[in-house]
Amino acid sequence: MGDSVKGDVATNLKQMRISAREQQNIQNQLLLQKTITDYSSDNFGYLPNFDFVLPVRTWVEIKDLNSHVDSNVWIRGRVHEVRGKGALCFLILRQQNELLQCVVDSKSEGNSKDMVKWAASLPGESIVDVFGKVVVPNAPILSTTASCELLVSKVVCISKAISTLPFLIRDANNTDNEEALQNPSVIRVNQDTRLDNRALDLRSFMNSVIFKIQSQVCQLFKSFLTSHGFIEIHTPKLLGGSSEGGASVFKLKYFDSDACLAQSPQLYKQMAICGDLNRVFEIGPVFRAENSNTHRHLCEYVGMDLEMAFKDTYMEVVDLVDSLLKNIFGGLQETCKKELEFFQKNNPSIKPFTWLESTPKFTFREAVDILRTSDVASEIPQDISDYDFSTEHEKLLGKLVKEKFNTDYYIVYEYPLNARPFYTMPFERDGLKLSNSYDFFMRGEEILSGAQRIHDSNALEQRARDCGIDVKTIQSYVDVFKYGAPPHAGVGIGLERVVMLFLGLGNIRKTSMFPRDPKRLTP
Amino acid sequence: MGDSVKGDVATNLKQMRISAREQQNIQNQLLLQKTITDYSSDNFGYLPNFDFVLPVRTWVEIKDLNSHVDSNVWIRGRVHEVRGKGALCFLILRQQNELLQCVVDSKSEGNSKDMVKWAASLPGESIVDVFGKVVVPNAPILSTTASCELLVSKVVCISKAISTLPFLIRDANNTDNEEALQNPSVIRVNQDTRLDNRALDLRSFMNSVIFKIQSQVCQLFKSFLTSHGFIEIHTPKLLGGSSEGGASVFKLKYFDSDACLAQSPQLYKQMAICGDLNRVFEIGPVFRAENSNTHRHLCEYVGMDLEMAFKDTYMEVVDLVDSLLKNIFGGLQETCKKELEFFQKNNPSIKPFTWLESTPKFTFREAVDILRTSDVASEIPQDISDYDFSTEHEKLLGKLVKEKFNTDYYIVYEYPLNARPFYTMPFERDGLKLSNSYDFFMRGEEILSGAQRIHDSNALEQRARDCGIDVKTIQSYVDVFKYGAPPHAGVGIGLERVVMLFLGLGNIRKTSMFPRDPKRLTP
Repeated sequence: MGDSVKGDVATNLKQMRISAREQQNIQNQLLLQKTITDYSSDNFGYLPNFDFVLPVRTWVEIKDLNSHVDSNVWIRGRVHEVRGKGALCFLILRQQNELLQCVVDSKSEGNSKDMVKWAASLPGESIVDVFGKVVVPNAPILSTTASCELLVSKVVCISKAISTLPFLIRDANNTDNEEALQNPSVIRVNQDTRLDNRALDLRSFMNSVIFKIQSQVCQLFKSFLTSHGFIEIHTPKLLGGSSEGGASVFKLKYFDSDACLAQSPQLYKQMAICGDLNRVFEIGPVFRAENSNTHRHLCEYVGMDLEMAFKDTYMEVVDLVDSLLKNIFGGLQETCKKELEFFQKNNPSIKPFTWLESTPKFTFREAVDILRTSDVASEIPQDISDYDFSTEHEKLLGKLVKEKFNTDYYIVYEYPLNARPFYTMPFERDGLKLSNSYDFFMRGEEILSGAQRIHDSNALEQRARDCGIDVKTIQSYVDVFKYGAPPHAGVGIGLERVVMLFLGLGNIRKTSMFPRDPKRLTP
Repeated sequence: MGDSVKGDVATNLKQMRISAREQQNIQNQLLLQKTITDYSSDNFGYLPNFDFVLPVRTWVEIKDLNSHVDSNVWIRGRVHEVRGKGALCFLILRQQNELLQCVVDSKSEGNSKDMVKWAASLPGESIVDVFGKVVVPNAPILSTTASCELLVSKVVCISKAISTLPFLIRDANNTDNEEALQNPSVIRVNQDTRLDNRALDLRSFMNSVIFKIQSQVCQLFKSFLTSHGFIEIHTPKLLGGSSEGGASVFKLKYFDSDACLAQSPQLYKQMAICGDLNRVFEIGPVFRAENSNTHRHLCEYVGMDLEMAFKDTYMEVVDLVDSLLKNIFGGLQETCKKELEFFQKNNPSIKPFTWLESTPKFTFREAVDILRTSDVASEIPQDISDYDFSTEHEKLLGKLVKEKFNTDYYIVYEYPLNARPFYTMPFERDGLKLSNSYDFFMRGEEILSGAQRIHDSNALEQRARDCGIDVKTIQSYVDVFKYGAPPHAGVGIGLERVVMLFLGLGNIRKTSMFPRDPKRLTP
């Protein structure tokens, strides 16, 4: 709406003999809805059409503003906060964790009181394009991250948010900030409210940190493995039978047959190994129809799986996975330095994750002996053949290892045979039935489980029978090994758990972008 | 079985008054089952136990043998072929595409006739460890890839294959080799037989090439995008409603609710963009319950998806995706040079994939005009508002573009609005209803489809109503855009299609490791 049109409206209103006050009201209403049609002549308003062909402009990000002082630049951001103060409007613009103060001054050349009034009416979370001069203010602005501010000469809203948001990003940010929560007047945003409105919630400072780190874990996982001769594979999630004994599966109809969702890519990884691909990995969804409502279980999570043929001992696999994880931990400290500093600043009571250059490895028996030094000693049977760590014992072991070795990360191997699935390679020592298996722990919680698999079809059948499994039900699995198979071992790592425990967060729903649990299937 | 035990058996057989011929038979039988228990004293036999602790040895790969001439090394490989010739046994060992001739000579020091006899009885596809001296033969061995051979002094079978294989790898290799197929006596292995026994089939030369390339496509996709500011996300595959109108979905029970499998991560990618993650990608399974039995449809395939906010025009996204694909094509030529040479050698009639430095981009109208120069001109209506390419027209367009521009790769954009889903950003030109949308083609087949999405909730509702969609059924999708959304666009790329069309293969089942189609849900 150009000025001439506005003039016409004023004339019309006058002619309609409407009172001066009402005229003012209507003009105000019209002002607040002002649209722009021409970037060169208009300097504020809403962009009316979204099938727009915009002028191609040169954009700067808030974090890069320091190198543009005294220049005029375009910046796109969200309205984080807005305050009108007479002839001035302060617009705090947000780009993820970056905040910039933009000043709309009616006295600046080309600006007007209407422009300030309009800008002050912008709903929070709207997206605006501002054009202005980058300046360094006399006193630093404490409420922003940028050390510059912008003197605005154009402001265009390209997406207007509704004014009634489910919650404010400011409140979500405070909910994630230990220090802010000390203040009794701070509003907490309930986790379900956040998850119900995840597209809004993801804008909170902490979420942009968490999901940057999650992405980086995947990149570090892949780059380490590809540089160690692994190839990435993709195995089917739709299976003809149940993918593995034990845990419950999601069942569905597949045209005229019965199908289920994969609980693990294990059989397929093993087939790839039997197909001589030697070293394979996969990052993909894993489905578990378990009615577990805990802080660390999801019904759909991201599995980072690997499987590899080894030459002499499965410890080759344990050592490689150990290097992989240390590479991820160290890599995060480098590539997500800023994000981790931000996290630490907001959560001073969470101790940063620690690990050692040489990871402590305990046999299951040694780990049990550590537990026996504590006051749960009486809960552990003398014969450990049928014992496995309870969640409480695992947590306690983590505490004891941390005290004794000063690490949040360690490995336990040689689990009792009875504690592992039938396909796990058995071995005996001193009359004890053990297995070539291992779990890795972070902060006293298991983040990965793995083992050497039996690669001989006869031995596999025998072991299945010993475990009371009808061989007919697993015949296709057994048959895979009849055409010759190298010794191999693998692991399945839970991505969300790694991120949760690396950061020391208390709930896996914080590290899953759209979590699925028995009570949540949306959004 | 040490020599002393063998002596005892001979004495016992003598004492049992069994005929000399039967004695010989039984001794032969025992010989062929000979096991070893000690690597230092025994020099041939089967390894009996799989819970073994092997001596830690130094291993060499066939491809690296040239730098070990005159040394004694351990090599693990599969028995590809075996021929006993009197005092000699020739064992062709395979490691993926590498072949090595190993010679077991009974006259070499420490070897015996029994050793040769035993080695000659090894079933194909068994896995053996051989120890011996690397030598350069007088005449090159034409049937192997290695230019050296190995004079064996130890051979241990660590995994014995059954003798009745579903097919021979040699025959599968010939099936993949155009030249071999010219020979009428060559045995073809049927595709279903191969897929039914995929763990065996993956050992064929071509498959190790195909899946190396497939993995590399993923790595190139990720590294390009992460270096352009994208983060990797993981969106749920279990959804509360149907993920997108149109195509059929797989339905299942999720505890007490109804759920379905994601047909596309699109809504979730868009939520991530509305959550200010700016640029996101995902590689994950996509499920389509369509009863399509064609060479290019799967019911579960790997989607390489990306979504990004842009500043001025959706062409920013088109250009980025174009660079991404060219980066993949060029990257494959570098990182998979050997594999592509191998492929070309075996398929001389398939023309290598070509592309140009500057990709031809045609508006839909321009593409139609190209088609109008051909003899299908009469099949194309004058008003193209309701026209879209048929599969045949797409193929023909590919042929015409190849003839005119000498490229197998090009882009078509500005599709008629009616040819695209309701959420596609519309625009008008010369009274024609068009859309900000695009498809990318390889060898005349679509490998990706994408568009700018409507990011204004009111416009989205209006467009849904115009398309006859009940807004209530998509309310949660519409609501995502009420809290402010940047203009954004994205694409979904089919991984298996990219690999199929890059190589020029005729069936997508060749580039899916465990394909799922209406008739196949196993293995």
